Amino acid sequence: MPCYPSLDAVPEPVDLAVVATPVSAVPRVIQDCVRRGVRVAILVAGGFGETGEEGRQREEELVRIARTGGMRILGPNTLGVLVPRSGLDTLFIVREKAPRPGPGPIAFISQSGAIAVTRMSAAAWEGIGFHSFVGLGNRADIQENELLAYLATQPGVGSVAMYLESFADGAGFFDLAREVSTRLPLSLVKAGRSPGGAKAASLHTGSLSGSERVVGGVLRQAGVYRAYDDEELIDVAWAMACLPLPRGDRVAVVVSAGGHGVMLADFLEAAEHSVGLRLASFSERTQEKLRREVLPFASVANPIDLTASATLPMYERVLSILAEEPSVDAVLCSVQVEPPGLDERLVDVIIAYARATAKPVVAASIGGEASLRVRRALNRAGVPAYPSLWRAARALGAVVERARRLHPEWF
Amino acid sequence: MPCYPSLDAVPEPVDLAVVATPVSAVPRVIQDCVRRGVRVAILVAGGFGETGEEGRQREEELVRIARTGGMRILGPNTLGVLVPRSGLDTLFIVREKAPRPGPGPIAFISQSGAIAVTRMSAAAWEGIGFHSFVGLGNRADIQENELLAYLATQPGVGSVAMYLESFADGAGFFDLAREVSTRLPLSLVKAGRSPGGAKAASLHTGSLSGSERVVGGVLRQAGVYRAYDDEELIDVAWAMACLPLPRGDRVAVVVSAGGHGVMLADFLEAAEHSVGLRLASFSERTQEKLRREVLPFASVANPIDLTASATLPMYERVLSILAEEPSVDAVLCSVQVEPPGLDERLVDVIIAYARATAKPVVAASIGGEASLRVRRALNRAGVPAYPSLWRAARALGAVVERARRLHPEWF
Repeated sequence: MPCYPSLDAVPEPVDLAVVATPVSAVPRVIQDCVRRGVRVAILVAGGFGETGEEGRQREEELVRIARTGGMRILGPNTLGVLVPRSGLDTLFIVREKAPRPGPGPIAFISQSGAIAVTRMSAAAWEGIGFHSFVGLGNRADIQENELLAYLATQPGVGSVAMYLESFADGAGFFDLAREVSTRLPLSLVKAGRSPGGAKAASLHTGSLSGSERVVGGVLRQAGVYRAYDDEELIDVAWAMACLPLPRGDRVAVVVSAGGHGVMLADFLEAAEHSVGLRLASFSERTQEKLRREVLPFASVANPIDLTASATLPMYERVLSILAEEPSVDAVLCSVQVEPPGLDERLVDVIIAYARATAKPVVAASIGGEASLRVRRALNRAGVPAYPSLWRAARALGAVVERARRLHPEWF
Repeated sequence: MPCYPSLDAVPEPVDLAVVATPVSAVPRVIQDCVRRGVRVAILVAGGFGETGEEGRQREEELVRIARTGGMRILGPNTLGVLVPRSGLDTLFIVREKAPRPGPGPIAFISQSGAIAVTRMSAAAWEGIGFHSFVGLGNRADIQENELLAYLATQPGVGSVAMYLESFADGAGFFDLAREVSTRLPLSLVKAGRSPGGAKAASLHTGSLSGSERVVGGVLRQAGVYRAYDDEELIDVAWAMACLPLPRGDRVAVVVSAGGHGVMLADFLEAAEHSVGLRLASFSERTQEKLRREVLPFASVANPIDLTASATLPMYERVLSILAEEPSVDAVLCSVQVEPPGLDERLVDVIIAYARATAKPVVAASIGGEASLRVRRALNRAGVPAYPSLWRAARALGAVVERARRLHPEWF
């Protein structure tokens, strides 16, 4: 790897500089960058605005110098940028410690590098792909609104997930998100909701967290899914990126285990701790058709319980009946390969079905290594798959919520 | 493996029979069992009480026959029994498809075999151990109250997790649980909370789900942690089995990543979506001591953010300061090995600390394979570790709730 003692010694033109020097050297390096016509500098070092007023002034000075050459700054105090499709990867955590996700539809903007890198490693492990990640750091120059406006023009972006501890420009975010969210699903964790969290945020990225009540109302009006949990953020962003919009809230549940059916029904319909969807009521004719495909003691009311005697052809035929059933808007499937008549080829059945239908299909697969393989294969094929029944139901709930907002006439 | 054409052909005495014949052959086999002096028969076949009145009568007939010989029946329609410590394993799902957990403190009573087997496989994958699992099935004879009373006498049981779709004897459960819960942590998912879920439950195990409002009140009064989610059930059962009771609700948060600290503070303290605990306020003296151990820009207020410059000795010294700090009742730790100065030896530091302190320690480690290894090692050493910040906070919340109930004078 070619190394040079200074930027001036680099023979080719330089577009992007990753500045990984200590704080004290940063101003000089920024001046070098401007002189060399660098277009963007990513500043890794901490010790600026998050440390107080003096640091904030040093940040402003850097931006002032950069502006003299029309250069933009990301950070300081940023983990960097990742674009899996092109291989651009400036993250300062080695790949061995933090495996990167493959290419995919989620764009992730985060004010915390750690939240992003840990969630992307977890997502990579599950077979979930990302369009890009940008660590905002202290946002001395580039901030989330500009990035969001840019991402909204990019064809490969299927969903934008955001972790913010504060808004760089709240009013601007609201106007932009309200417009963008009609075309692109947006989800956001607004952290620093508690006094202790807000204080930690001010020390972390030097940001002021703002009123909790205002944030909730604004996000709702702007059509942004508000996640409270970093896990929920990626779960929901993934489902919204992958799935077509359902034409209603009536869900068919297909399981090979009675208990999974009972829990999923509760998660859809119960008064508390549910996502407020409905179990579809099948027509007599459909129930008749289903009855021909399953064992006598299996249930063909919704949830459809194929029981531990389930087979691959049973799944195949039951799913194809549901594809034609007009009372079904979406399918929630427990994909377990434990029953003796099932194996991992069940994944292919689910994928083929999901590709052939215009209805969203969400899967849950719970367990150890085998269920991880099932989820990976499903996720890689664009069928969102979760290691918990609740997470699967919640992700489907987010997609229905979006459909209801964009097409109230369907509900 | 020796095989015999009938029970009568077995030369040795038989204590336990696993009856895996089709429904039609079950009555004859039960008669054989009684004749041979079998003490317990586990009936695998479905097609009894869950199919309607006629099936219920067949069940009653089986119990009547069993009683003539003093034999007890588990099931029918049960997955079986697992006791990792002794190797007793009658589950009809092969180990290759559903890896069994190792020995540990959780006893699991479940009316759904699938919820249990999928959750135990997931727990095994994370390094969590079980004392035993009993699948209740249709509960024609043995039911949860009798098992709970038995488990409460067993020294190896640290926590009882239950999945029920109905109570065999609700009043009896209430009296028993109220008494047992003072000695042993109990947690329960009561499924069939929705009309659709209740209907599915009646088809699944032939049980009537009962009033949701009554159930909530009864569990609270009986000191049973009510989980809504099968994942939460095991999370909480595990923390309650492993941890000493905290003497209060003041939590110290230690992270190497600002964002994790902000999120954990929110999960402890925020008005919504939090567990309602408090961030401990450190004394001036303790903050002074902490300041000597961390880098100048790290935060020594709570959450303690060691930043990406964290090292193993830093963790070690900071934790030992917290062990002595009287304002700290419990420690919540983000255990990430991504920072350059950290590696998986951090696990040993956390385990050594957890063993040396009387305060509960809960860990979160988010990511792919490396964080799975971290969680496994922590869980195997009895330090509850979760793949999400929220799940770690929630598990600690359950332990504090139990301490508050049993020792209100501490709060």
